[in-house]
Parts: sequence; structure tokens; C-alpha cells
Amino acid sequence: MKKLSILGSTGSIGKNTLEVISAHRDRFKVVALAAGNNIEMLEAQIIEFRPDVAAVFDEAAAEELKKKNLPVEILGGQKGMIDVATLDSVDTVVSAISGSAGLVPTHEAIKAGKNIALATKEALVMAGKIIMAEASERGVSIIPVDSEHSAVFQCLDGRDIEEVEKIMLTASGGPFLKRGPDELKNVTPAEALNHPNWDMGRKITIDSATLMNKGLEVIEAYWLFNVPVEKIGVVLHPQSIIHSMVRFIDGSVIAQMSVPDMKGPISYALSYPERLGKVLPTLDLAEIRELTFEEPDVKRFPSLAITYDALRAGGTMPCVLNAANEAAVEAFLDERIPFTDIFRVVSDTMAEHEVSDGETIEEVINVSEWAKEKAKEVIEAVRIH
Amino acid sequence: MKKLSILGSTGSIGKNTLEVISAHRDRFKVVALAAGNNIEMLEAQIIEFRPDVAAVFDEAAAEELKKKNLPVEILGGQKGMIDVATLDSVDTVVSAISGSAGLVPTHEAIKAGKNIALATKEALVMAGKIIMAEASERGVSIIPVDSEHSAVFQCLDGRDIEEVEKIMLTASGGPFLKRGPDELKNVTPAEALNHPNWDMGRKITIDSATLMNKGLEVIEAYWLFNVPVEKIGVVLHPQSIIHSMVRFIDGSVIAQMSVPDMKGPISYALSYPERLGKVLPTLDLAEIRELTFEEPDVKRFPSLAITYDALRAGGTMPCVLNAANEAAVEAFLDERIPFTDIFRVVSDTMAEHEVSDGETIEEVINVSEWAKEKAKEVIEAVRIH
Repeated sequence: MKKLSILGSTGSIGKNTLEVISAHRDRFKVVALAAGNNIEMLEAQIIEFRPDVAAVFDEAAAEELKKKNLPVEILGGQKGMIDVATLDSVDTVVSAISGSAGLVPTHEAIKAGKNIALATKEALVMAGKIIMAEASERGVSIIPVDSEHSAVFQCLDGRDIEEVEKIMLTASGGPFLKRGPDELKNVTPAEALNHPNWDMGRKITIDSATLMNKGLEVIEAYWLFNVPVEKIGVVLHPQSIIHSMVRFIDGSVIAQMSVPDMKGPISYALSYPERLGKVLPTLDLAEIRELTFEEPDVKRFPSLAITYDALRAGGTMPCVLNAANEAAVEAFLDERIPFTDIFRVVSDTMAEHEVSDGETIEEVINVSEWAKEKAKEVIEAVRIH
Repeated sequence: MKKLSILGSTGSIGKNTLEVISAHRDRFKVVALAAGNNIEMLEAQIIEFRPDVAAVFDEAAAEELKKKNLPVEILGGQKGMIDVATLDSVDTVVSAISGSAGLVPTHEAIKAGKNIALATKEALVMAGKIIMAEASERGVSIIPVDSEHSAVFQCLDGRDIEEVEKIMLTASGGPFLKRGPDELKNVTPAEALNHPNWDMGRKITIDSATLMNKGLEVIEAYWLFNVPVEKIGVVLHPQSIIHSMVRFIDGSVIAQMSVPDMKGPISYALSYPERLGKVLPTLDLAEIRELTFEEPDVKRFPSLAITYDALRAGGTMPCVLNAANEAAVEAFLDERIPFTDIFRVVSDTMAEHEVSDGETIEEVINVSEWAKEKAKEVIEAVRIH
């Protein structure tokens, strides 16, 4: 029986995780749940899954929830998140708090020797070096939950990374794959939130439309699989059936596919190295008829070029990319900047940054805060023009 | 240094095997070569690869070759093939004699404890039960060389077969995928020999056009991977990029791809569990643009239905299918029967067969001989009508 703590249980990944667990109650015990502020949903989850502990990041919401007198210990704030991430009785922490807020609890979980099912890509984007070094030192497994990284992980299946010639991440291309440069300028948040294949959170859906999500995934792959940046490529695959591929030195390519449903990678991360039964519907390729592929258009979607620049710059630059992007996406969702300025805000913020090594979580967080503030300045400057 | 004996060195698989070896001389030593009757090519191979022994199935041709005074021991006949398959100094036998002639040497090689790189699918189609039992008893590995089975083998990569929900073999569909039933009748041998993706021998190219090759591969997969017949499926994939797939119990599908070139599966069979470098050109999916899939049309190409019938009948029935098909393809190549009568000859011959267990190689060979004779009768009867 695997004992789980789920950080971000009311988000898209969290809900899917609980659905998987719900179908395999004999294999998993939910010891703890943690959410940001959605106490209504958290309450329902507490009643259904009977954890020992629940945490709410928003202190006021935590107090609110305590009044319900649920049969569970309720914790609040960042400290509550960390407590839930490091509980003695937990083997595996599902790290699914979106954005940079997931970094500290994930880091603390690793320091406490917990295996990690990792959905919070920001933990690696911001602090990949620290996180992977800590995991290696503690003998902790980090199993990816992102569909692309789960695919790569399944394709590698323990093979020596020296045999890998290229990791090919697939990208749906998002809803604007066919739009010209001028049309892209006028894209609305509502259009951008309407992803063709995946039902995900708001931030990640916009990142998917800008291809910045793929950029963040390139950074995540860089750390997870410990390959040089030249060995990571991206190919557009609008049907999102092949979730990613690995090309080996002999030219043989192993690909992982399924119907697009996050329960696939989530269940693999939970049950690894085994597989659970009947997680996903049967993939019928004859019914799908065709899988298509194309090169990403870096001119219309410069995210990937920006990402490779950030990785080559190294140190804290990927962290700055991430923070600037968070600020830019927020500004776009608030209709303060047009879609195409998201790229500009990110690269203009990066241009202002002097790279440092990023040796501690505190340093990384400070850089991230700096970058958010700087991005806000850039956003204001962009709005004036 | 792996020490190899190559049975069928002048055939399509044999030549590709030597090309792979030629690029990796530091890893492989060719100890023995065996061919049917093409002594001109065999002579060139002897000069290039300097084996200790060479065998020629055709005794007269063997005598002819001896006159050349090459620095190699020359053997002849079935006995020569068996000697080459069982040499003490050999670790691995590449079994690539096409058709039923490959069965006895392959069986003897396994009995002698040699690992097998298996291209001769007839060994499993005719005598799968005997071959696999022998291999298991001797602790011998049988690594598939067929591109489809190599793909499945790579997708499984040591995973427990209990986790497999379905093995999906891909089929190019051959050159006549789009022809209607009436057009199929008038197909000529020259047209059938013109395969769109793979450059192979004559017999296998016709089998590819009738889809009977896929049927034989279903039987081969049945024995190699030890799965019930219901767990083996076929999907048409005209581009021959995905060489086969495995769907696991969680719904995740692992697929193996490459540019279609037999050097891929051959090199994997030779170097397993490692991979050799730079065997195949880089697969560029963005250049290929699309991979398509469709259900096989069992009405126009009844081979798969016939195959599943043969597997369900069990015992010697797959052996009869194979022998009748060999006779029918020969008759088609000699322009004695039309393309569409190949199916009829096979199923009419099967209808005449009373299934037995097929417990010994001798019994299997007798049944095969019986089926060839019976098929010839059927062919004569078909020609008269």
C-alpha cells in the first residue's frame, strides 16, 4: 500500500490523481491533501478520501475549513504545505501545485526522503540543479507526471542515457497553430483557453498556446534526464497521441502513445515500475486514421528559441524566463497585453538579468521575485507603446 | 567479440547482416557462412569476411566452390548447413534461410545451445511449440530479426508479458492496398514484386502483397511472445515507419519506429541488449509529415482470417497454411494461378488437413510435404476451372 500526500489536490492534476486512486483503493492510501484556497472542493475530497492531514495555503481559508469540524487535522500557510510534504507516514508526494508556489514544498519533500510524482515543472525549471542534486543525494526517485516526460520515462524504461541520441518532445501546437502573425496579435484569453486536446489549468493552457509550456518542458527534460540541451528536440504533433519519443544511437525510435488523458501519466507515476489496469480507454489508431508532424515555427512562436537561449545562458536564467512568463501570462489573461507580447515580456526581462549560479532555494526565489517585478515594469513599458 | 554463423548469407537478410557486421568489425567475428546455391556471392563474402567454414546447400555448387581453393573449409548439403549451425566456436546463429528449409538447421542450432537471431519465420510457423520448448529448456535466447517482432521485442524491453493487453503488428498493406476485388484478380507477378517500402526477397514480397506475410508474423508473434491469439492484432500503416506496437493494461502504447531498413532490427538482434551506433539514418517525422492507419480489409485480403483460423485449429494447421502458401506463391510467380487464388489454395488445402499435435520436427516436415503435394493438387483443380 503506497502512502501518498497530494500537494495541489483541487487542481486539474490533483483531481485526476484522486480519480486514479479512487479506482485502485487497494493500492493507495491518501495520507494528506493540500490545496491553495478551494476549501469547498477540499472538504469534499476529505470526506471521500479520509486523509489524516489537510493543508490550505491561504491561512484565512484554512481557518474557515477548521470550523467544519472535519475528522482531519487542518494546517495552514506555507508551513502547512511543508508539513504535508514531509509527513513521516508518507512514501510518495504528488507534487502538483502549479507555478512557483510548488517549489519549496517539493524541495522539502525531497529533503525528507520522499519519492516524488512530479507535475510541478517549475520546481525543475527554477531550481533543477538543486532539486536533482538533492534527489540524487537522498536516493529519491522523481517520476514525471507531465505527459511528455512520462512518455520519455516510459520510452527509456531504465535504458542507459548514453544510448540516447535525441529526446523528441511532441507539442500539440495549441489552438493557434495555423494563425498568421497578425491574427496572433488579436487572440483573446477566451480563445487561448480553449485547448484542442487537453483539459488543463488556465496558466498551462495559455503556455500551451504560446508554446512556452513546451519550452518549460524542454528545461524540465534537461534536468530530469540529464542530457545536453542539443539532445532535446520538439516536433509539433497536433493530435497529441504520441506524447513523446526517444531516438537511440542506432536510429531506432521508441514512442509512447495513448488517448490524451492525464490519468495515464499520473497512474504510471503512482504505480511505477508496475502498470495499473484499465486506466485509459483503448487507443484505436485505425479510427484516428492519421498522426501528423511538423517543425515548430519559431518565428511566430519564439518560445522555444527563448528557452534554448535560457538553458545555454544557464544558472538562474531559466528561473527568470519562468517568472517573467508567469507575469506575462497573468497580464494577458487580464487583457493588459496582447498575446504576442508575452514573448516580448519574457525576452526583455531576460535581457535585464545578470546570471548567477542559483545555488540555494532562497537565491532562486529571490531571483524569481526580482524577475516578476522586472517583468511588471516591462509590461507597463509595453502597454505605453 | 560475438562469434557468428550466418545461415542464408547470400539472401536479403544475410547481405544486410554482413553490412552491419562490416561497420562493427570490432564487435563481431563471422565464423561461418551458409548459402543455398549462389556460390559467386558466397565466394566474395568468404574473401571479405574470412570465415573458418562455409556451407552450400546445393551439393554440386559446393563441389564447384571447393575448386576455387579458398582459405576456408567448404561443406555441402543439409548436413553442411547443420554443421555450420552447430559449430562449437559459434555463440550466435543468424537464422536467415527463407522458407521451410531453415527449420532443421535452426532447430539443431538451438539443440546445440546457440542463441538465435531469427529471421526464418517458418521455424516458428511450422514448429513453434517444439522450437520454443527447446529454446526454453536449453536457456537459449531467440531474438527476432523481422522488423515487426524486433519492434515488439524493443517495446516490451523485458517487461512482464502479463502487463500486455495487445500486440499490434503493423502492415504496410503491400502494393495493392487500394485495388478493388476485380483488379486484384489480374495482378501480375511483376507488379506484386514491386513493394513500396521494403526491399526484400521474392517470396516474402508476394506474401507482403497478399498480407499472408502478416498472417505468418501473427503466428510468429504467438510463439515468440507467448500470448493468446486474441492478444495479437494487425493494423495497416502504409508508410512502414511504426514497425509495431504494444498496448499495455493501463492503455499506454509503446511503439518502435525507424526509417524502413532491415539493418535496424538486424543490428539490434546482433548487439542486444546493447545498441550499436549509427545504424540507420535519422527519422525525421516533420519531413514525413503523416503516419496513417486503417483496419485491414479481410474481404479483399482474407489471409489474416485464414491465419487466425489456423492458430485456433492449433497443432499442425499453421504448418499446413505455410506449406500451401509456399506452393501457391510459386504457382502465382510461374503465372499458373491468379493472385486471388493464392488465398483459395491455402484455405482449400487447410480444409483437407486433419490436425495432429506436431510433436517432432520429423512429423512437422512430413505434414509440410503432404500439404505442398495437396496444394499442388488444389492448384491443378483451380487451373482447370
